[in-house]
Amino acid sequence: MYRIALDVMGGDDAPRAPIEGALAAMDEAAAGLEILLVGDPAAIASVLPDPPPSGFRVVPASETIAMDEPPALAVRRKRDSSIVVGLELQRDEEADAFISAGSTGAVMAASLLILKRLPGVDRPAIGAVFPTADSPTLVLDSGANMNVRPVHLRQFAHLGSIYISDLMGIDKPRVGLLNVGIEEAKGDELAVAAFELLRSDEALNFVGNIEGHQIIDGACDVLVCGGFVGNVLLKFYESIAGFVVQLLHGDEHRNQSDADLERVFRVLDYAEYGGAPLLGVDGVSIVCHGASSPRAIENAIGVAVRSLESGLIGDMARDLAGLHADGAEA
Amino acid sequence: MYRIALDVMGGDDAPRAPIEGALAAMDEAAAGLEILLVGDPAAIASVLPDPPPSGFRVVPASETIAMDEPPALAVRRKRDSSIVVGLELQRDEEADAFISAGSTGAVMAASLLILKRLPGVDRPAIGAVFPTADSPTLVLDSGANMNVRPVHLRQFAHLGSIYISDLMGIDKPRVGLLNVGIEEAKGDELAVAAFELLRSDEALNFVGNIEGHQIIDGACDVLVCGGFVGNVLLKFYESIAGFVVQLLHGDEHRNQSDADLERVFRVLDYAEYGGAPLLGVDGVSIVCHGASSPRAIENAIGVAVRSLESGLIGDMARDLAGLHADGAEA
Repeated sequence: MYRIALDVMGGDDAPRAPIEGALAAMDEAAAGLEILLVGDPAAIASVLPDPPPSGFRVVPASETIAMDEPPALAVRRKRDSSIVVGLELQRDEEADAFISAGSTGAVMAASLLILKRLPGVDRPAIGAVFPTADSPTLVLDSGANMNVRPVHLRQFAHLGSIYISDLMGIDKPRVGLLNVGIEEAKGDELAVAAFELLRSDEALNFVGNIEGHQIIDGACDVLVCGGFVGNVLLKFYESIAGFVVQLLHGDEHRNQSDADLERVFRVLDYAEYGGAPLLGVDGVSIVCHGASSPRAIENAIGVAVRSLESGLIGDMARDLAGLHADGAEA
Repeated sequence: MYRIALDVMGGDDAPRAPIEGALAAMDEAAAGLEILLVGDPAAIASVLPDPPPSGFRVVPASETIAMDEPPALAVRRKRDSSIVVGLELQRDEEADAFISAGSTGAVMAASLLILKRLPGVDRPAIGAVFPTADSPTLVLDSGANMNVRPVHLRQFAHLGSIYISDLMGIDKPRVGLLNVGIEEAKGDELAVAAFELLRSDEALNFVGNIEGHQIIDGACDVLVCGGFVGNVLLKFYESIAGFVVQLLHGDEHRNQSDADLERVFRVLDYAEYGGAPLLGVDGVSIVCHGASSPRAIENAIGVAVRSLESGLIGDMARDLAGLHADGAEA
């Protein structure tokens, strides 16, 4: 039995999109899934069928953290917010995973505070799935850490490798270092130092530097970088897909059934991949885009279930514990 | 009379693409353009009509710097390379501008060495033109400087503003700071400190932080950032356009005359914008993509001519000289 706590108050179209996504996930799920809908009971009742379908439980939370609130402060003050309550369910072993399309900063801050970090992890990172021409690439950090050191990139490489291995069944995932050239001396101080750390780590399948234009080829399974550049890249990528589609639609030229367009949509639609996991905390915490559709939420629930089935957190804990000694320098 | 020195040995399709681009530019030019073709005379003779059309002059250079040579070393050793010879023409006042589709690193290193920096400029930057939904955005630095400080971003803001003002006729160009959020406290240490410097600079039209997804909207005319993230973003953008077109073509679905496709091509084709100027050196030096078509070279020649017509370098020298005193801190 997997118990998923879902923040139904987060996202542009809450509570409708989260609840509809949860209903769809339950329809598709094998037996053994329970979804805890966390939020305002009245708002939930306006969307959830009455009586609720089997497998659903409502967990009241009287507060909501807005997208523009200072995350750390909001998490400390709003103890009855859907994000805090949802994560506390996991801490108290009443749930196994948490999903929210609310404030990314608040989910991060609350996850750190409530779930805590895994031993050996200095900085949990957001892993964003980038669709590519080949299999998708997990880019981390995509925005949790603005100022990172080389040892953090090494930890990201381990976290990402285990995630991709467990969730996608890829043995020895290829790890790349985002950089401005393929030669090892390239890059800023962070990249130059990280290259050496990654190359000398025999537990990793490090394939070297990856330049901006190689990402879309699917040149690696896990791409490590600082949270600043990762976040800029992620948001830029998301906007490009929409922009191209907009250019193509071009009003009068629009042709919904166009097979070519469908293909672009399918490849560039990151909603297909569910949310972005916060990797390195002691639990499953998944952040979804604020604009998540029911389908994106449904996929995020699928990601949470696969994380639990694969024993992701235990695998990470075992792997990262061994890194701590030499990872604690710098 | 504007005299443009063109490195005909640089680029994937040299010397054909540079020379054909030069021929096209000469066809289109008003009177008063001279193009100095710098490179191996025999290679030039294999492409250039005999006798050469009016306005062309061949300047022999016996060496070529390859794309994978260490730039600084190659520039010091290959004194008779097309890049060094071409830039020396400008230093010796035999040419007014230099264009190359060769090694970006070598053009940068040689430009710094031969043309020198403008007073008040600590770090010249590469300005790359990003096509957007609105007017194009100049992103700098796009790869010249890996480790930058806040004062450098301020210098980039000035250099970019003058470039956009002179070449595109935009009065008071909007300057944005690439960042992960719009609030002023967002970002890494560089961005947080640069925000304050940019905001307090009354000579700039600073519009605040620009997130990754706002770039494509054309949210600013000049976007400043460190060379690491700028380079990653530029290469990623270039690859996306090709990727989408490839997805769309999709073999059997290909339809060359499709008006929608044409529109995507037109918007995303950075070749339309000619090369990327190296801003902050005491002269006109333009780097073109290695894969530059004749059309891209032709447009780069147009950019060089407009730089000269507008008095770009003099305008930059005047503006930046005043910054040096407080720009020399940090």
